[in-house]
Amino acid sequence: MRLRPVPWQRAMYSPTVTSQNPAPPSSSSARPVLIDTDPGVDDAMAILMALASPELDVVGLTTIFGNAATDVTTRNAFSLLETAGRTDIPVAVGRSNPIATDYLGPVPQVHGTDGLGNASLHAPQEQPVEADAATFIHDTVAASPGEVTVLTLGPVTNLADSITRFPDVVDLVDRVVVMGGNALVPGNATPTAEANINNDPEAADLVFGADWDITMVGLDVTQQVTLSGAAIERIMAHPSPTGTLLAKAIPLYRSFFEATNGIDGIYLHDPSTIAYLLDPAAFTTNPWPLRVETEGFSRGKTWPNLGDTDDASPPAWRDRPLVNVCTGVDAIQVAGLVEERLTR
Amino acid sequence: MRLRPVPWQRAMYSPTVTSQNPAPPSSSSARPVLIDTDPGVDDAMAILMALASPELDVVGLTTIFGNAATDVTTRNAFSLLETAGRTDIPVAVGRSNPIATDYLGPVPQVHGTDGLGNASLHAPQEQPVEADAATFIHDTVAASPGEVTVLTLGPVTNLADSITRFPDVVDLVDRVVVMGGNALVPGNATPTAEANINNDPEAADLVFGADWDITMVGLDVTQQVTLSGAAIERIMAHPSPTGTLLAKAIPLYRSFFEATNGIDGIYLHDPSTIAYLLDPAAFTTNPWPLRVETEGFSRGKTWPNLGDTDDASPPAWRDRPLVNVCTGVDAIQVAGLVEERLTR
Repeated sequence: MRLRPVPWQRAMYSPTVTSQNPAPPSSSSARPVLIDTDPGVDDAMAILMALASPELDVVGLTTIFGNAATDVTTRNAFSLLETAGRTDIPVAVGRSNPIATDYLGPVPQVHGTDGLGNASLHAPQEQPVEADAATFIHDTVAASPGEVTVLTLGPVTNLADSITRFPDVVDLVDRVVVMGGNALVPGNATPTAEANINNDPEAADLVFGADWDITMVGLDVTQQVTLSGAAIERIMAHPSPTGTLLAKAIPLYRSFFEATNGIDGIYLHDPSTIAYLLDPAAFTTNPWPLRVETEGFSRGKTWPNLGDTDDASPPAWRDRPLVNVCTGVDAIQVAGLVEERLTR
Repeated sequence: MRLRPVPWQRAMYSPTVTSQNPAPPSSSSARPVLIDTDPGVDDAMAILMALASPELDVVGLTTIFGNAATDVTTRNAFSLLETAGRTDIPVAVGRSNPIATDYLGPVPQVHGTDGLGNASLHAPQEQPVEADAATFIHDTVAASPGEVTVLTLGPVTNLADSITRFPDVVDLVDRVVVMGGNALVPGNATPTAEANINNDPEAADLVFGADWDITMVGLDVTQQVTLSGAAIERIMAHPSPTGTLLAKAIPLYRSFFEATNGIDGIYLHDPSTIAYLLDPAAFTTNPWPLRVETEGFSRGKTWPNLGDTDDASPPAWRDRPLVNVCTGVDAIQVAGLVEERLTR
């Protein structure tokens, strides 16, 4: 399909620092990254980490349901941009429901009723762009063919929507990085499924079935990367807007992990994807075809085919493209990188 | 239900050595074990290992489809008893199809067209008992309440059939040990499912849902236990009927692992269950409620609930009894035990 110019596109990749851009400038060599997100405490950490990283140029946020409903996560997206002094970054509102079902609902025991650990932030004043998320994703990658990384931190509904409505997005994107899924480990939302994929398995099966450069950063690695209680204290005590916001957002989230997983610390789900962009050498990946189960109580499970079964060509995986599935991680390195970026 | 006496029961547990019992006698302290099996190369190794172990008193074999059709595995069961000189042990014929579906068919690329690696054994002359496997299982455990271990090496169809037709079997058995399933690792029949469970997921969900002492010895441990090429050579060269039979049965099976898994050796799936009976301290188990998926391409996956998900009480696992799921194994110890017993 043809590119449809929209007003906000022209300024999007500008490396120029203006008075509305008090944060660190993007260098001209920074990689443009569009972040689809459902903030979310760990989304907040990931976005603030990305915005503190000169290697990355965050060219837009698109919002989605997941940790909270889409209207809540959209408000949170603006709060995070205000915190980082980056209200120049456009925000596009995404879908309110999965592509084939209804939203499962928020998880207030994990992310609070406001999606940010009951941080009780003031209401942001900014407005989203007119384009919806799927259109925004397409038009952003179309404006710089082969250059933009699309990073998803929530259910991949918007990305599936974009593929369906604008099939050329598959060729126009540079690469896709998905936080979600569990290839060789159990789930965290259910015994079978990871939370993001569980929120829209049909969308995930579509996204992992598209023929593009795509990496899955799932529980296989993110549950290996624990931010210790001591590191959390240091981040929350840091004298910066980021430290101040995270000091309000993290405590409830931290309590959840203590009660559920018995750890003094938090798993770095979403921040690990930023670490993957900054330091891919800290991760081990395997190229596997991947299917997402949509049936039974296995619904939401991401299933790789490792190629060592009695049936050498199991039907469900035939003709599927390869996905880079993260299976190993230098957890100390990644946790250190997250702390370093959040205390800049 | 009432116990129904059948002719072959009276002599079953006799520790007396008669002229028809040329093999090593069962000691009076030996544990009575009924083996449900689909021989199968690794079934053959397991059965011969059990028969060579004075700690175990094999009180009967029941046959099932799986590695081959039930008529083939029944013939193989007799061949194994002949090899061990234990034709005194009764054999009962099991079902020809899963409880809710049709038999998926044999796997000649793994176990040969005869189920024993194309060993081309002569046809055995013995006849099975009149009772079918489900009845035989019930009546055997009913004759010695709380004493008999039921060990399954194939699809658990017969055991599910026994539960359904004779519900008191659940209270009468001492314990159940199942070779099958994959709790925290991928499948081997399909990317999602282990071969035995994949052959009858409905039966497995019934068996793991019964309130008895049950242990799952699945791929989580059996794929850690490799019998090396050198150990295989020693077993096949052993001057005994067991060595002679395994020298014919193992080569095709071994080739499959070399081609599919890239190892010089074989995984000790079924023999690991005998090792579990002989030396449970070599295994680590976790008590988890377990469900078996019957839908989608996840069909046949055994799913534990580890109790650490967002939903603390996921519906599918509610009110399910605990299963001892083997997750760790001293592989060197187990492989050594298998070789020692098969070269006695």
